[in-house]
Order: sequence, then C-alpha cells, then structure tokens
Amino acid sequence: MKSNNSNRRKFLQEAGLFSAAAFMPSASHKIQDATERFAPFVQEKSIAPRLRFGVIGINHGHIYTMANSIIRGGGEFVAYYAKEPDLIKDFAKRYPTAKLVSSEDSILNDPSIKLVLSSITPVERAPLGIRVMKSGKDYMVDKPGITSLEQLAEVKKVQKETKRIYSISYSERFENKATEKASQLVETGMIGKVIQTLGTGPHRMSIPSRPSWFFDKKYYGGIITDIGSHQVDQFLHFTKSTKGEVVASQVANHNYPQYPNFEDFGDLMLRGNGGSGYVRVDWFTPDGLNTWGDGRLTILGTEGYMEIRKNTDVANPHGPGSHLYVVNQKEMLYIDCKNVELPHGELLVNDVINRTETAMGQEHCFLATELALIAQKNATKITRTI
Amino acid sequence: MKSNNSNRRKFLQEAGLFSAAAFMPSASHKIQDATERFAPFVQEKSIAPRLRFGVIGINHGHIYTMANSIIRGGGEFVAYYAKEPDLIKDFAKRYPTAKLVSSEDSILNDPSIKLVLSSITPVERAPLGIRVMKSGKDYMVDKPGITSLEQLAEVKKVQKETKRIYSISYSERFENKATEKASQLVETGMIGKVIQTLGTGPHRMSIPSRPSWFFDKKYYGGIITDIGSHQVDQFLHFTKSTKGEVVASQVANHNYPQYPNFEDFGDLMLRGNGGSGYVRVDWFTPDGLNTWGDGRLTILGTEGYMEIRKNTDVANPHGPGSHLYVVNQKEMLYIDCKNVELPHGELLVNDVINRTETAMGQEHCFLATELALIAQKNATKITRTI
Repeated sequence: MKSNNSNRRKFLQEAGLFSAAAFMPSASHKIQDATERFAPFVQEKSIAPRLRFGVIGINHGHIYTMANSIIRGGGEFVAYYAKEPDLIKDFAKRYPTAKLVSSEDSILNDPSIKLVLSSITPVERAPLGIRVMKSGKDYMVDKPGITSLEQLAEVKKVQKETKRIYSISYSERFENKATEKASQLVETGMIGKVIQTLGTGPHRMSIPSRPSWFFDKKYYGGIITDIGSHQVDQFLHFTKSTKGEVVASQVANHNYPQYPNFEDFGDLMLRGNGGSGYVRVDWFTPDGLNTWGDGRLTILGTEGYMEIRKNTDVANPHGPGSHLYVVNQKEMLYIDCKNVELPHGELLVNDVINRTETAMGQEHCFLATELALIAQKNATKITRTI
Repeated sequence: MKSNNSNRRKFLQEAGLFSAAAFMPSASHKIQDATERFAPFVQEKSIAPRLRFGVIGINHGHIYTMANSIIRGGGEFVAYYAKEPDLIKDFAKRYPTAKLVSSEDSILNDPSIKLVLSSITPVERAPLGIRVMKSGKDYMVDKPGITSLEQLAEVKKVQKETKRIYSISYSERFENKATEKASQLVETGMIGKVIQTLGTGPHRMSIPSRPSWFFDKKYYGGIITDIGSHQVDQFLHFTKSTKGEVVASQVANHNYPQYPNFEDFGDLMLRGNGGSGYVRVDWFTPDGLNTWGDGRLTILGTEGYMEIRKNTDVANPHGPGSHLYVVNQKEMLYIDCKNVELPHGELLVNDVINRTETAMGQEHCFLATELALIAQKNATKITRTI
C-alpha cells in the first residue's frame, strides 16, 4: 500500500491537517473544525468532574467525540494509552491534562479509573473490552463495537459474569442533535405509533486519509457491521423493538476493484416486534456535498412522519447541521436543532456511578450489533460488474 | 358499506366536489385544481390531432391525466364508454367534444379508433386490454395495469399474437416533471453509473372518497401490485435493468382493522442486472401535508446522487410541485422543474402510428408489473399488532 500511504501524506499536507484529523469523516471539508479540535477541550456545561476515566486505543477520530461527551457529562479524563506517535501527538494537544501512560495495564490496574473508552482498530475492540470488564471497569467503544458473532458471544458471556457496562457509541443517534430531538418528539406521540424507519448512511471515502485496515473487512467487519450498526440501533430505538430479525441483506464492491476486500455498498430489511426497518449504507458521498454524508432517517408513524437530515440540508440555506422535519395530522414543521442538548455522556456517567441503564439498555446495545453482524454474515454479495 | 357511502357523500359535500374528483388522490387539498379539471380541456401545445382514441372505463381519476397526455401528444378524443352516471357527468364536462357511446363494442368496432385508454376497476383492466388488443387496437391503462400473474400470462400471450401495444401509465415517472428531468440528467452521466434507487410512495387514504373496491385487494391486487408498480418501473428505468428479481417483500394492515382485506403498508428489495432497488409504499400521508403524498426517489450513482421530491418540498418555500436535488463531484443543485415538458403522450402517439417503442419498451412495461406481482404474491404479511 505504498502509493496509498503516499497519497495520504499528500492529502494531509494539502488539507493542513495532522493525521488524527484524517480519520474524521469530514476532514476534507472542516478545516476550521480541525483547528478547534486541537485546542484544549473546554467544558461547555458545568457538571463537576465526578468519574475518572481513561482511554486505550485512538485509531479512529471518533474518540474525540466520545471523550468530549463523557467530559461534558462529568467525566475526568485521567490517562490514555496508544501506540501510534502521530496520533498521540494530536490527541495530547486536545487533552493536555490527561496523562499518557506506557501500557494498557497502567490503566486497567488503576482502581480509581471506572470507565475506559476506546477507538482501537475495530477487530481489537471486543478483546480489549473483555479485558476492561474483567478488570472491573465499564467500557464505551467506538462502532463497530464488535466485529463477529464469535466475539459477541464472548463479550455477552463476560458482561454477564462481570456485570460491567459494554456500551457502543452509536453516535449517529447519541451525538446527533436532530436525532435526539426526534427521540423526544416521537415519545410525545407527535406522529402516533411508529411503523417503520428508513435510514440511509452515505459516507465519503476520502481514500488518501484512510489507514490500511479501512480497506480490509477482516479488520473492520464489513460495511453493515461497521456503518450499518448505527442504523440498526436507530431502527430498534424508534420502533421500540426488543426483538428483531434480518429479512434480507446485501453487500457489494461496486466501484473499488483495487480494494477487493472492501465493501462500498450494503442494505438490509429488518423486522422487529415494534415495527420494521430498511437501511442503506454506502461510501459514495460525492465531493460536491458540504459535509461527509447526507445521512437521513425517516420515521413513519400512524399519525405522521419525521425526516431527519442529519448533517446537512442540500441546496438549502439551512446548510450543514442537523435538521428535523415533521409532518403530522395538524401541520408541517421545520425544527432547527442547533441548540438541542445531547444527554448521552451525562447519562452514561450516571449509569457507571449508579449501576443503571439510562443511557442505553445493555440488551439493546447487543441486539443492534447482533442484527448487524447477522445481516453482514448472511448478506448476498452483489457481483454485477458495472 | 352503507356508512362508508354516507361518509363519502358527506366528504364530497364538504369539499364541494363532484364524485369523479373524489378519486383523485389529492382531492381534499386541491379544490382549485378540481375547478380547473371540470373546465373543458384546452390544448397546451400545438400538435395537430393525428390519432383518434377512445376511453372505456373511468373508475379512477387518473383517466384525466392519461387522456390529457394523449391529447397534448396529438390524440383526438373521439368516444368513451362508462357505466357510472355520476362519473360520466363530470367527465363529459371536461371533454365536451368526445361522444358518450352506449357500449364497449361501439368503440372496439370503430376502425377509425387506434388507441383505447382505461381506468376501469383494476381487476377488469387486463381482460379489457385483451379484448382491445384482439380488436386490433393499442391500449394504455391506468396502474395497476394487471392484477395477477395469471392475467399477466394471458396478456403477454395475446400481445405477442396481436403485436398491439399494452402500455401501463406509470404516471409517477411519465407525468412527473422532476422525474422526467432526472431521466434526462442521469442520461448525461451527471451522477455516473446508477447503483441503486430508493423510492417511497406514501399516499393519503381519504377514506370517505374511496369506492368499495379500494378496500379489497381482490379488486385492486394489493398495495405492491397497485402503488408499488410505479416504483418498480422507476427502479428498472433508472438502473437500466432488463432483468430483475425480488429479494424480499412485505405487506401489512397496520392501522385499518375495519378493512381486513386492505393493505396500508408494503415494502420490497429488488435486484436487477443494472443495479438494485428498495421500495416502500403506504397509505399514511397525514392531513397536515399540503399534497396527497410526499413521494421521493433517490438515485444513487458512482459520481453523485439525485433526490426527487415528487409532489412537494416539506416546510420549504418551494412548496407543492415537483423538485429535483442533485449532488455530484462538483456541486449541489436545486432544479426547479415547473417548466419541464412531459413527452410521454406524444411519444406514445408516435409509437401507435409508427409501430415503435419510444415511450416505453413493451418488455419493460411487463417486467415492472411482473416484479410487482411476484413481490405481492410472495410478500410476508406482517401481523404484529400495534
């Protein structure tokens, strides 16, 4: 992959970004955000630190969103461990008070640390989580949080034995303001009983910015396991399904023959005990879009529907940001969500302290990933040449 | 169905509409359009009449769109036959120069009439079409154009023997300006090679306006056969698929237990030799929407995507109408489609005269319906109580 690495360096130079930023999906379009990202993190909300946490593995930029969310919710970021000097360099700037330690065990053996966060390479996330839980700590991991059904079985076993929290950061729900707002409004009955969710999650490839594990499903688990797991989470959440099955699923590599172990397209139909769902994910965000992906979620209810335009409103003055549209028996509404608060971090900190499940049920967390893993495993490979 | 008929009358009185208008999906929200509808039809474009056509059966208001399209394209509306006095009354006002005849045979036996249009009750459409083709005439029928696989087999056989045109009016493509515009732009390569289509077709129930056959799938064929056939047409068209299969399909009656033979929800996954597709159709358009249904079609390509907002742009100053959004490697665009011309009627008139297939290929027409019928027949019935 020499040429790829060379392209990646070129891209980073052009974008004026350090490599950690390169893992952010929106890196090429959010240079000003990158600047902000490397300034020391400042608490937005005054929740006094009440829980010491650490980080092990920072291989995807989502770790920034995760750490920020826990800090906002009352976490005190104490220590981190990672292997990659370039990633550490940028991370250290953002969290100057957290201490870089020399081994994973320094964190696992520190009894004052109650929660460990990770965005290590996907295939390593479950084994790490098992070590974290066995050390008596709770765990929040980037998605995909588990990359095979075998890993899932072992994680579930250890979680049951240790009674620790194994939380996966389904950030397209937890860290998206319009999705949070939709959760609140669906709960009021504004669109009646939810019948179906329809979610699309297009992502930008940004090939030069990607590490080699990105192109081999052996490491990231496949497109449905990876970016599809977000969508399955939302399907279960909005239909209030506690059981579910995969009706059909497909994956494809339509456009990247140079990466034979990569998948650029996946879709699936789901049926739950609370409603049904369809999910499409892909790596076809075109360069003309003003963000990393025009993710949408349409929630169909008996008395109306909501459409979440998660990251932008194409060719509309609303522009980038998180937008919610609602139509019900009474009216059509646009709801600007920029001031919506995201409670996930605070709820998870509460859960660690109180041994509750307010941020996300453990069964829900596992079921979302299980359905994604089943859909991935049984997916028909579309082999049509285009 | 006494109470339904009584409700229907009440609705019609309230809306100030005659009953033919009641069959239009948007009746309750387009009173001014209804006024226009009953004014004599005026030719917008000056194509001299060059083809005499007739109408047999006007049980769905789509017949107005169909007749207008053929007149615009150079058709001369000569004669019509229908059984329902209230429907005839309104129809006559719109087409004062066409002659009401006393039997179907008056039209079938008139050698000067080359094309017959129909929106007779769905289950009667194929048998009528067979009689039309056997009389040596071409046929354009409202969708669903064929309501069972047995009917399809017979229609295909007779079509092959007679070499007549059996055209189904997939109006969500042919009579929708943004969809026509999208067809033109996809053809230019503006979004690269099409990979997938994702279509949703929500419709408003307007229960009081519906005739009794609307509520029994024995007469209309089921929700996928009916409103899903539009969507399958668009999937085949935009992916340029000439072969296809149904990956999975579902139907449900989520919210209308009082109509046990009605379906209010259906969805399906499709795979073709040119791309894949997903379709969702339902009868859940809420009263707050400013048109009969917020139909969308997203066309995903290797170099960009298009989103057609077919009938309205929710909570946006664009309002009702047909809107096209395009994002590709270069830019994000909104395209106002109100001045786009719809060529379908003219092309079909050409085809009747020239024995060509420029409006729609006969194989394509049958394949779209065949896939919808297969999806309907094999659909899993979602029985979850909500």
